[in-house]
Amino acid sequence: MTQPGRIYGVGLGPGAQDLMSVRAHRLLTSARHVAFFRKAGRMGQARRIAGDLLPETAQELPMEYPVTTEIPFTDPRYNDCLAEFYSECIERLLAIAESGEDVVVLCEGDPFFYGSFMHLYTRLQDRVPVEVVPGITGMSGAWTATGQPVTWGDDILTVLMATLPEAELTRRIRETDAAVVMKIGRNLSRLRRAVSEAGRLTDAWLVEYAAMPEQRVRPLAEVGDTAPYFSTLVIHGNGRRP
Amino acid sequence: MTQPGRIYGVGLGPGAQDLMSVRAHRLLTSARHVAFFRKAGRMGQARRIAGDLLPETAQELPMEYPVTTEIPFTDPRYNDCLAEFYSECIERLLAIAESGEDVVVLCEGDPFFYGSFMHLYTRLQDRVPVEVVPGITGMSGAWTATGQPVTWGDDILTVLMATLPEAELTRRIRETDAAVVMKIGRNLSRLRRAVSEAGRLTDAWLVEYAAMPEQRVRPLAEVGDTAPYFSTLVIHGNGRRP
Repeated sequence: MTQPGRIYGVGLGPGAQDLMSVRAHRLLTSARHVAFFRKAGRMGQARRIAGDLLPETAQELPMEYPVTTEIPFTDPRYNDCLAEFYSECIERLLAIAESGEDVVVLCEGDPFFYGSFMHLYTRLQDRVPVEVVPGITGMSGAWTATGQPVTWGDDILTVLMATLPEAELTRRIRETDAAVVMKIGRNLSRLRRAVSEAGRLTDAWLVEYAAMPEQRVRPLAEVGDTAPYFSTLVIHGNGRRP
Repeated sequence: MTQPGRIYGVGLGPGAQDLMSVRAHRLLTSARHVAFFRKAGRMGQARRIAGDLLPETAQELPMEYPVTTEIPFTDPRYNDCLAEFYSECIERLLAIAESGEDVVVLCEGDPFFYGSFMHLYTRLQDRVPVEVVPGITGMSGAWTATGQPVTWGDDILTVLMATLPEAELTRRIRETDAAVVMKIGRNLSRLRRAVSEAGRLTDAWLVEYAAMPEQRVRPLAEVGDTAPYFSTLVIHGNGRRP
């Protein structure tokens, strides 16, 4: 029997190609099979970061999400639809690995931190060798963009999704030293009310497209009612500093 | 007047040399002046990660901490002593930058995330050009080592220092989905009591020396009463997963 190939979940960092790790760079430039998630009709952020690093001979496997915003999270069809999609993805990946070849799966940020790769990982890990290469998170890219350290001394950092209920966001932001909020998009107005209610509006920065050419950093108070998908809110801590 | 040089705060990631970014690698391999913090008599973790990447001609500037554990944090002499130390460090860095040369400051993990570089950064930023290169955090190295994704869906992640009061640790761990705890060392027993009191003891993993050759992952319940300095506690979230 052929020795199975290995599936690599490779973190590519927040957006700039040279912020991927040396290990990721080595895997990409020698890859024979490269898989990545994307929305139908889009290039996909992970594939965009990889850019021209992939060998011309590499086989590319785009994995296109079947749902975006048409079905609400709360509808059971949402989960069913995604579960079926992930099953199809792993069948394609397993077929390659079982033929003895490695596959590199491109991941934005860090694969184990709110990443889509995790859904493949849990289904693959008992069947073929799987290896995860950590990456610089999108939030590191965001706080670096603000030009201010995010946590000092014994600061508590809370990472939240803007999809949480407004009262929960308010309470969590009030009770933490530093905060990072992701998945902002259409939740921006609600998030701003929560930050304001928590008394932190003047400390809050919205970072759009961190570590990308379009990077922009603005005080949350000065932002309108919409934010692009790649937006992160950063509230800096104020811990012990000699 | 000479154009001043630039001071780079370069994140080197969690420990493995090939987990530094391509940008960091390029800066290190072409550096003329390389500064790094260390305890007196030690090599220093940041310098260890850089290993043999520095050019032989690079000038090395170790910056040796004046205090370790002799003076408690709460003693005003602690802050005074550190403030004087940081002043001396920036005088040395400024002298090089003002002569027109760049300096690379080596930083473990990510410079803006609980890093020592921040204390230099805030003192330097209005005097010479300073640029920060983000890195893979030590906590990313730790959760990758556990072989389980740390956050899913809308999970809340709380990052805590084990130096916090026990009741505070307990409350924060009880109220979060996923948690990372750092600065463990001599606080290990107290931390374990807090995790246990919060009802999360069976979910908690202690990672020692993440991304280093000595890496070890153990259930917190099975760990004795001491942990090395490079230890991180990881409690995984259990959010939405189709």
